[in-house]
Amino acid sequence: MAVHLADRLAAALTRTQSRVCVGLDPASEGVAQALGRPPDAGALWEFNQRILDAVQPYCGVVKPQSAFYEVWGPEGVEALRKTLVRARESGFVCLLDAKRNDIASTAAAYAQAYLADGPLACDALTVNPYLGSDGIAPFLKVGRPAGRGIFALVKTSNPSSDELQNLRVESGALLYEAVGNLVATWGADNLGDCGYSDVGAVVGATYPSELAHLRRRLPQTWFLIPGYGRQGGTAADVAPGFDAQRLGAVVNSSSGIIFAGKDRPDVDFAVAAGEAARAMRDSIEAALDARSM
Amino acid sequence: MAVHLADRLAAALTRTQSRVCVGLDPASEGVAQALGRPPDAGALWEFNQRILDAVQPYCGVVKPQSAFYEVWGPEGVEALRKTLVRARESGFVCLLDAKRNDIASTAAAYAQAYLADGPLACDALTVNPYLGSDGIAPFLKVGRPAGRGIFALVKTSNPSSDELQNLRVESGALLYEAVGNLVATWGADNLGDCGYSDVGAVVGATYPSELAHLRRRLPQTWFLIPGYGRQGGTAADVAPGFDAQRLGAVVNSSSGIIFAGKDRPDVDFAVAAGEAARAMRDSIEAALDARSM
Repeated sequence: MAVHLADRLAAALTRTQSRVCVGLDPASEGVAQALGRPPDAGALWEFNQRILDAVQPYCGVVKPQSAFYEVWGPEGVEALRKTLVRARESGFVCLLDAKRNDIASTAAAYAQAYLADGPLACDALTVNPYLGSDGIAPFLKVGRPAGRGIFALVKTSNPSSDELQNLRVESGALLYEAVGNLVATWGADNLGDCGYSDVGAVVGATYPSELAHLRRRLPQTWFLIPGYGRQGGTAADVAPGFDAQRLGAVVNSSSGIIFAGKDRPDVDFAVAAGEAARAMRDSIEAALDARSM
Repeated sequence: MAVHLADRLAAALTRTQSRVCVGLDPASEGVAQALGRPPDAGALWEFNQRILDAVQPYCGVVKPQSAFYEVWGPEGVEALRKTLVRARESGFVCLLDAKRNDIASTAAAYAQAYLADGPLACDALTVNPYLGSDGIAPFLKVGRPAGRGIFALVKTSNPSSDELQNLRVESGALLYEAVGNLVATWGADNLGDCGYSDVGAVVGATYPSELAHLRRRLPQTWFLIPGYGRQGGTAADVAPGFDAQRLGAVVNSSSGIIFAGKDRPDVDFAVAAGEAARAMRDSIEAALDARSM
């Protein structure tokens, strides 16, 4: 019997004493600078191996962003495949950020691609909820037997996320709240031992009041919190995303960690990434310490 | 100077006298049956070549669905690459159905992957609008200089599309209408000679009244209409999606065409696909004839 996604996330956070998720977004310019040579798909894989080794002491969750691999075509997807295999073998919980969404047999194909035991298997996939329940059910059908799950976009970190997500709908709720309610419903019939479900929510660090509000409304929903660091979110901003046991959320940082060496030409890029991951871990723990005083 | 997407679509429909888009969704079981052997990524490519040749007399637009390639991992993406190259070389306008969505540098990477001259270049990419304008602008920035564009999901063809898309928002509009308004805004500053923009809308054949309504509201917006055939949409249902010149929409059918040979063991699968494409073309033209009488 596969271990439930929610429990694997909880174990990863407890084991590492870290709420950090490192975003593996190997943008070309950053990789070129780090490795000191023009990038290609092979460079992505080389870069990622070094990053994974460097951050492993400081986090138990990683999140490759599919776009940065797809841009290299089939060879980039091969670099993604190797990265996923290596990260999972190293014990990381792997969230693949691909924001897939479709219906019926197409959603089933995406689910088969990412939540079954194929070449691109991950532990959880980000998905877009705009198509409603039809676009979610196929992912759960494929993912659940394998202890895998999804994170649905609820309140994204970008400035224009208000345009649609903060429209007030007829029930009186805002659209993102209505989506949050659906997310809770989708996950309610498959809770892990830790009390959380396998249908998480993406909630940006850049909207801390919405984050706090959603934490109260969705007590069984894991949050994936992007927008920390270069997008503006702070440790104090993300603290309300966690429950009293410091579970229920992972906070992602991508370029702030993997390209932390950008302005430090005297330091190896992987060493800089490890230090940045440790500093982020410590900042979040300190914010949670302050909260519980 | 690259020819504008809208004008290339108009030319494709006028040249072929067909409003049909053939969906290249090579699901494993269907490909296995058609080729009479267990499928692999190479089989997808072999299958697609035969289909492209067979349907070319009857349509000028094709739409590969990325999920059915991603499920085979890097090798499947290689089959997608070959399919896109071959289809574009054969003169098809290629819409890649991938429903991508993200923000900032990530959306720019997706745009670079699909709307620049990389290995997976297509003519237009489907995108999901849930993130708002931030998730659209990077695609336009990359696509426009190359005469490429996007189709944003507005009203999808599935039964649960009502759950979010038909929520009434504070302005009094339904959510899908609000999204439609955004789509019109996003495209308004780049119209082709035919009067249509490079930001299209996905509107399902299974909601004919919404389709007619959106045609009136969005006179400068190309529609990509899925849901024809096996999902239930008829030629009469899709007729209101077209303007008086029979432009402004393409109607997609996937398994109804590419797997038309499923129940005809005496007929070559590609011949059956060609016949199905011709029949669909003729049905839609007849519905448009009936409308104009």
